[in-house]
Amino acid sequence: MFAYERPVRFEDVDAAHNVFFPRVLAYCHEAMAELMGELAGGYARLVVERRIGLPTVHIDVDFTAPLRFGDVAKIALEVSRIGRSSCTFAIQVSRVIDSAAVAKVKLVCAASDLSTLRSVALPEDVRRVLEAHLVTPS
Amino acid sequence: MFAYERPVRFEDVDAAHNVFFPRVLAYCHEAMAELMGELAGGYARLVVERRIGLPTVHIDVDFTAPLRFGDVAKIALEVSRIGRSSCTFAIQVSRVIDSAAVAKVKLVCAASDLSTLRSVALPEDVRRVLEAHLVTPS
Amino acid sequence: MFAYERPVRFEDVDAAHNVFFPRVLAYCHEAMAELMGELAGGYARLVVERRIGLPTVHIDVDFTAPLRFGDVAKIALEVSRIGRSSCTFAIQVSRVIDSAAVAKVKLVCAASDLSTLRSVALPEDVRRVLEAHLVTPS
Amino acid sequence: MFAYERPVRFEDVDAAHNVFFPRVLAYCHEAMAELMGELAGGYARLVVERRIGLPTVHIDVDFTAPLRFGDVAKIALEVSRIGRSSCTFAIQVSRVIDSAAVAKVKLVCAASDLSTLRSVALPEDVRRVLEAHLVTPS
Repeated sequence: MFAYERPVRFEDVDAAHNVFFPRVLAYCHEAMAELMGELAGGYARLVVERRIGLPTVHIDVDFTAPLRFGDVAKIALEVSRIGRSSCTFAIQVSRVIDSAAVAKVKLVCAASDLSTLRSVALPEDVRRVLEAHLVTPS
Repeated sequence: MFAYERPVRFEDVDAAHNVFFPRVLAYCHEAMAELMGELAGGYARLVVERRIGLPTVHIDVDFTAPLRFGDVAKIALEVSRIGRSSCTFAIQVSRVIDSAAVAKVKLVCAASDLSTLRSVALPEDVRRVLEAHLVTPS
Repeated sequence: MFAYERPVRFEDVDAAHNVFFPRVLAYCHEAMAELMGELAGGYARLVVERRIGLPTVHIDVDFTAPLRFGDVAKIALEVSRIGRSSCTFAIQVSRVIDSAAVAKVKLVCAASDLSTLRSVALPEDVRRVLEAHLVTPS
Repeated sequence: MFAYERPVRFEDVDAAHNVFFPRVLAYCHEAMAELMGELAGGYARLVVERRIGLPTVHIDVDFTAPLRFGDVAKIALEVSRIGRSSCTFAIQVSRVIDSAAVAKVKLVCAASDLSTLRSVALPEDVRRVLEAHLVTPS
């Protein structure tokens, strides 16, 4: 399990005073990019130099409690499936202060050549990072 | 069916040069807020004065093609279910230029008292707006 | 004078319930990009195909009143100076509902080759768009 | 001097592949909020519970180099003036990798009652935080 904590920023909330729900997904993507920090050069080098990305092809989310300014979000990420070119992340977002469950997220990402936008096999180093966080044998 | 078009903004893309996937969901929320423009005072009055919101409790999305700077996104929204306090939107996001399907989105929103964050029955005027866009009898 | 109106979005506000001040500048940039809609293919083609941008090199802003959810912002833009490679926009942001002055913005943009990030002369078609909105002879 | 470092996020860039200029100002605000972490309860408690904010009333920025995905931004913040209700921050934004100057920012903030939106005297605890980072006697 990979855990990532980040404070809710002043500008992350909406007119209802809660973190705008798409931003919760941006937090999840941020956690995924942090996980990819285990690659040489991190996610940035994968994207910018190698021109390979992990665009999201499917998401499924249940929101159960709000996040507000002053909260710190904890994003706990596990890899639940590794395929040839895609993988699935199982993510629990919670509030650090009271451990309340904020969102349960399933995120499916597919390795893509960013120049052609075509699906490619997961690069070997990406696969190794994913395998290190795999919870259930695929 | 309620259709809403909006250009991809210069700042909506990510380092892979596509619209960042959470922003596609922000576009969907924008379309929902536009639909609520049929209320007196619009979504803003509902949220700011009446302190009732329609927070998202569940989303399910399949992404099938990217949006890029220069594209115009079309968000076609239908109401597929109306319950006591919640409703479901079935949304198709496409590119105007070639009608390519970008994302298929299911969005479940629950009416909430924004002061107490508790679920409330859908207000009558909100229900009437939803019913006008309901595709399948609930 | 070029006028552009846009509603404050649900997610544009911050934890103080006002539009987050950098977003007011994003509104100004949006107005500038709309102005460049007078180019063939718009600002997007300039940036994506011709790889020429107008990055901001200087800004000077006085904020005088807040924008809130429910407000519509009016961005009134004039060109106050056209140089060889740069130009200056004089922008007044106001609230449509009561014409209150929200911000007075001076924005200096410099034409740049986006591949080399070096300054270039303003392309002729861009210069013509700017000249059409120039208020004081340069 | 207060220094704050943060990576450029995947979604912080624009269609020109640089950090969108208003986001550089969001980074500066983030640094200011981090500085206010020296208050009991941080900036969030000041805003949410005490309903006092430090809205920006003036900014003046020179941009000198871009930030890109993969860069880490360093925001070095000093207090250059403390008045009765307002203060001025002098901020240098640079790239960590090569120390290149990205932006020189002057940010004037005014303490405000967020309920009435009227100017108030700087609270004593805020003043003490500011004084600890004051570079030139006011």
